Amino acid sequence: MSENRTEISSLGEFGLIEHLTRNIEIQNASTIVGVGDDAAVIDHFGKQTVVTTDLLIEGIHFDLMYTPLQHLGYKSVVVNLSDIYAMNATPTQITLSIGISNRISLEALDEFYEGVYAACDKYGVDLVGGDTANSQKGFIISVTAIGEVSPDKFVKRSTAQKGDLLCCTGDLGAAYIGLILLEREKRIFLENPQVKADLEGEKYVIGRLLKPEARKDQIEFFQQAGIIPTAMMDISDGLSSEILHICRQSELGCVLYEEKIPVAEDTRNAAFKFELDPTACALSGGEDYELLFTVPQQDYDKLVLNEQISVIGYMTEQEKGSKIITRGGNTFDITAQGWNAFAGK
Amino acid sequence: MSENRTEISSLGEFGLIEHLTRNIEIQNASTIVGVGDDAAVIDHFGKQTVVTTDLLIEGIHFDLMYTPLQHLGYKSVVVNLSDIYAMNATPTQITLSIGISNRISLEALDEFYEGVYAACDKYGVDLVGGDTANSQKGFIISVTAIGEVSPDKFVKRSTAQKGDLLCCTGDLGAAYIGLILLEREKRIFLENPQVKADLEGEKYVIGRLLKPEARKDQIEFFQQAGIIPTAMMDISDGLSSEILHICRQSELGCVLYEEKIPVAEDTRNAAFKFELDPTACALSGGEDYELLFTVPQQDYDKLVLNEQISVIGYMTEQEKGSKIITRGGNTFDITAQGWNAFAGK
Repeated sequence: MSENRTEISSLGEFGLIEHLTRNIEIQNASTIVGVGDDAAVIDHFGKQTVVTTDLLIEGIHFDLMYTPLQHLGYKSVVVNLSDIYAMNATPTQITLSIGISNRISLEALDEFYEGVYAACDKYGVDLVGGDTANSQKGFIISVTAIGEVSPDKFVKRSTAQKGDLLCCTGDLGAAYIGLILLEREKRIFLENPQVKADLEGEKYVIGRLLKPEARKDQIEFFQQAGIIPTAMMDISDGLSSEILHICRQSELGCVLYEEKIPVAEDTRNAAFKFELDPTACALSGGEDYELLFTVPQQDYDKLVLNEQISVIGYMTEQEKGSKIITRGGNTFDITAQGWNAFAGK
Repeated sequence: MSENRTEISSLGEFGLIEHLTRNIEIQNASTIVGVGDDAAVIDHFGKQTVVTTDLLIEGIHFDLMYTPLQHLGYKSVVVNLSDIYAMNATPTQITLSIGISNRISLEALDEFYEGVYAACDKYGVDLVGGDTANSQKGFIISVTAIGEVSPDKFVKRSTAQKGDLLCCTGDLGAAYIGLILLEREKRIFLENPQVKADLEGEKYVIGRLLKPEARKDQIEFFQQAGIIPTAMMDISDGLSSEILHICRQSELGCVLYEEKIPVAEDTRNAAFKFELDPTACALSGGEDYELLFTVPQQDYDKLVLNEQISVIGYMTEQEKGSKIITRGGNTFDITAQGWNAFAGK
């Protein structure tokens, strides 16, 4: 946080909104009316509108002790855009509401908004509205993202087909290890503020937690490669939980290969340091914001050369259940917590 | 609140969402994908999409001591729909995110959602998404409303014209008196729980606070009467504050006649009981959710027979300032707080 401190109350609500939105430049032609009216007006003429929303609460979703406000602003936007991409759609606008206690200065809020605008810039979306309120305790962030998609292009979770390949983008588990690491450093710091944090070599996992990106690039790749996934969602709660969503909503089972689950080398090393199983981190750790999707087998050639995509399994009929085959060759039921070794067979 | 108490934690997040959304029936053909995916998909083909959002925080925006949860759910929806109507648009979908502490039982949450669904039903909108989160303190509600409007029909705040009539719907000031009343009853109750509240005769002002309605009927009237206001907004922060928004954004001044400001008989009586000036309540009390709008003078004939519409003044050039002419014939500057007798002339 900056050293200057301006009390937000000195601006008044409208002064604050004016201050926070003074530099907005509209990026999308579809943004007809932006901030400053009762509502925004958006022209997705000929396309369908896609909407998603997330609520982020201090002490539940983030800890300001180790979360820089700029990163928090950036992440608040990105996690919502990720949901829009997960529909195979393009985000175009966001609204942002914040609840702030008097602990937050105007300078701190400016840092948060720098992150918000950086994400808007990077992903080409417009901030078109919102609300500011006082909070009795803690910082509250509510973002709604709006996007557009051609009527024949959006992808649900419920439409995977038997025999489809199960795929994911990027690598998994890093954000979870990043969280474990920062929580440990926080404990150490609280016990002994003199000890300096040793986070060298952990930049990757910490970065994945604090400043995630949404997979805009992969949605663009689908477009270029002529791929429309049969089902898709983003991985925010952990791979196993998301796989179970697709299985349940598509009324299918699946086989997942442990050895195919992409885990970065840095994640693996950090996991071993904490005596954690990297696969368990990938399966049940959340906040990776990668995409999980299914495609027909005949699309394999279209995506095999994309290094950001891993084929991790395939879809089966519902009666066969949702299974993981481990490196050791054992088969277990996938559970929302990862897998259940006791229920396995 | 109901006497049964089910801990929300006993359902888990997905169980809770499933429970709360189990009875949703889609009302709008434009709702292509609703609850249960990464995002909702909406088809406003040929129309523009209108978006607005509000954050409501316990202890700041509402007090659960005197706010029935059903009414709170209803109001959370209505205040957002009011913003959509204020664009001369039709609301079609909402998303709803809630942050809940473990003080709230499932039964209490069900009451809240009953109110949400009652409002959705009455106004014909679909709940298409949202988020549930834990809150460290208090109940947090974030609603985003989405609507549609023909490209040539939406009405901003910035487009009033010199000479236009300044009008409002319904009557003003009641919600503010309702708040004063309930805050007084709360203080009395806290001091002496034996004293029974005497709220007979105050039903109107309390109802206006706890269960406001959005002016769907007046937007439909505009449609039927062939009126497109030149500027419009809803009255949530008090008449004077909203008039100043329209003046500033339209770069105009105005003349407002005190005697023309509509105040209900019940409001007037309740105001006198508290030794409050009814006009001051209308000017600076908020939460009326009526519409403030401007129309060309030649539209006067189209609206004169509508008993829900009052012509309260007219727009002037900016240099003339924003003035109120009191019953006594004095002229004062309108300020956001009502009027400033010291700055008047």
